[in-house]
Amino acid sequence: MRVLAFLDGTLANPETPHIRVDDLGLMRGDGVFETILVVDGEPRELRPHLDRLARSASMLDLPEPDDEAWQHVVAQVIDNWPGGHEFALKLVYTRGVEGDPEARPTAFALGMTIDEKVTRARAEGVSVVTLERGIDPGLAERSPWLLLGAKSLSYSINMAAGREAARRGANDVIFLATDGSVLEGPTSNVVIAQGRTLLTPPATIGILPGTTQAAVFRGAERAGWSTKIEPLHADDLRAADGVFLASSVRKLTRVHTLDGQPLRDASEIHAELAEAYENVYA
Amino acid sequence: MRVLAFLDGTLANPETPHIRVDDLGLMRGDGVFETILVVDGEPRELRPHLDRLARSASMLDLPEPDDEAWQHVVAQVIDNWPGGHEFALKLVYTRGVEGDPEARPTAFALGMTIDEKVTRARAEGVSVVTLERGIDPGLAERSPWLLLGAKSLSYSINMAAGREAARRGANDVIFLATDGSVLEGPTSNVVIAQGRTLLTPPATIGILPGTTQAAVFRGAERAGWSTKIEPLHADDLRAADGVFLASSVRKLTRVHTLDGQPLRDASEIHAELAEAYENVYA
Repeated sequence: MRVLAFLDGTLANPETPHIRVDDLGLMRGDGVFETILVVDGEPRELRPHLDRLARSASMLDLPEPDDEAWQHVVAQVIDNWPGGHEFALKLVYTRGVEGDPEARPTAFALGMTIDEKVTRARAEGVSVVTLERGIDPGLAERSPWLLLGAKSLSYSINMAAGREAARRGANDVIFLATDGSVLEGPTSNVVIAQGRTLLTPPATIGILPGTTQAAVFRGAERAGWSTKIEPLHADDLRAADGVFLASSVRKLTRVHTLDGQPLRDASEIHAELAEAYENVYA
Repeated sequence: MRVLAFLDGTLANPETPHIRVDDLGLMRGDGVFETILVVDGEPRELRPHLDRLARSASMLDLPEPDDEAWQHVVAQVIDNWPGGHEFALKLVYTRGVEGDPEARPTAFALGMTIDEKVTRARAEGVSVVTLERGIDPGLAERSPWLLLGAKSLSYSINMAAGREAARRGANDVIFLATDGSVLEGPTSNVVIAQGRTLLTPPATIGILPGTTQAAVFRGAERAGWSTKIEPLHADDLRAADGVFLASSVRKLTRVHTLDGQPLRDASEIHAELAEAYENVYA
């Protein structure tokens, strides 16, 4: 099921075409997006998602998104969602039609049913392979034109990494920097547990600042955990008491297998953190 | 002016929407493309372009493109082009609609008027800045999931680099690897002249194999030049007798300024090579 609304407030049929072939979002992957989890009519982390949309847009030199209009269109899709109690809400914002002198961005919100694979990953956890991302942790700050840490529509590498994982019999990926630093998943942030401390790498190393990771950290802190944002090394993954991927739609997903080797059982930690995360919205 | 035909042979109005919002080409930059120069009804380097489309598609695990259908649609757009004696012909091939069980690719050819900026660059040359690309020359072979050397729709970095060049008062970019190796431009290959030898870096270092670069080399060889495909270092640019960017629509463009410093005048070499290139199609 899909529900589509454009930023101007027009509801539209998602199964008919609405995008010109010469939209730069299509032609050049030139635009940004967000994916928001909506549960029982409430968009989770809406403020951080809209802030990150604005941050990505700024990194791509796109016009500043109209925050109020986005809030309105989010509410509109939610009001028109006829499906189950949760869905994924995608916000897409492109540079618009190539060569258009007015250069009006294309902007829409699309509600989408959550895939069964996602529900399974939440319950059962995932197996992950580490893959080289080929960048060093200082690159993002040195070379902003590489758009590291922007949630751009140019996600073909992220998709290709997922297919590489499948070829290796795994469900997902953790990207490593050239020095072995832990970066992120193709569509998630990496969180590890060391005793009663949660850790995640800083966004400055060229990764997306995590909205769900931040929510998990808030929930965990309220439940008595410590949290740290600091560089992690690949070795820290195997040594951790728990390894997790945080993403809006999959929430906090437990990694049970890394590069073909089982990790220590973090089911109980996961259950506790998952509850702490849900309590953020209770 | 724009002329649009879909791979199934349907001509369509390019100014109306034809693409669904949930096309993976838009949502994820998940697809490949080519841009072909058409002069007096002849598509230049059509065979290499279609071969490269197939190569890119294979790197992205897309279904093998239907070569005959692409040849047909290229001819169709050319037959229907009502404009001037040359135009740019874009081929676009995406993974199709997200979650579609049939997963039929979206495929179309779009003829587009050539921008005045391009004509100016051909005549006057361009100023270029070198920008870090953040990868090492061995990465492409080690890590195929990074899609280095695939002409994917995920081109937002290429576009961002162009804007960075503009901020620095330049027209274009040459990307450098972490070790100072010359890579490519965001939409071109780099060619240098050393005496009567033309050089360009090998595609194996993670760059696009150049269709226009190859045509220039063919033409130059017929005109008595030697050609070499070998790694080049940033220092080779300033030391060269001529530095050029090769791309389908801009042809062989002379670089007159590098990082704000004028390069030695290569106007005569450029004129000779431009003629050698045109003779390929005479």
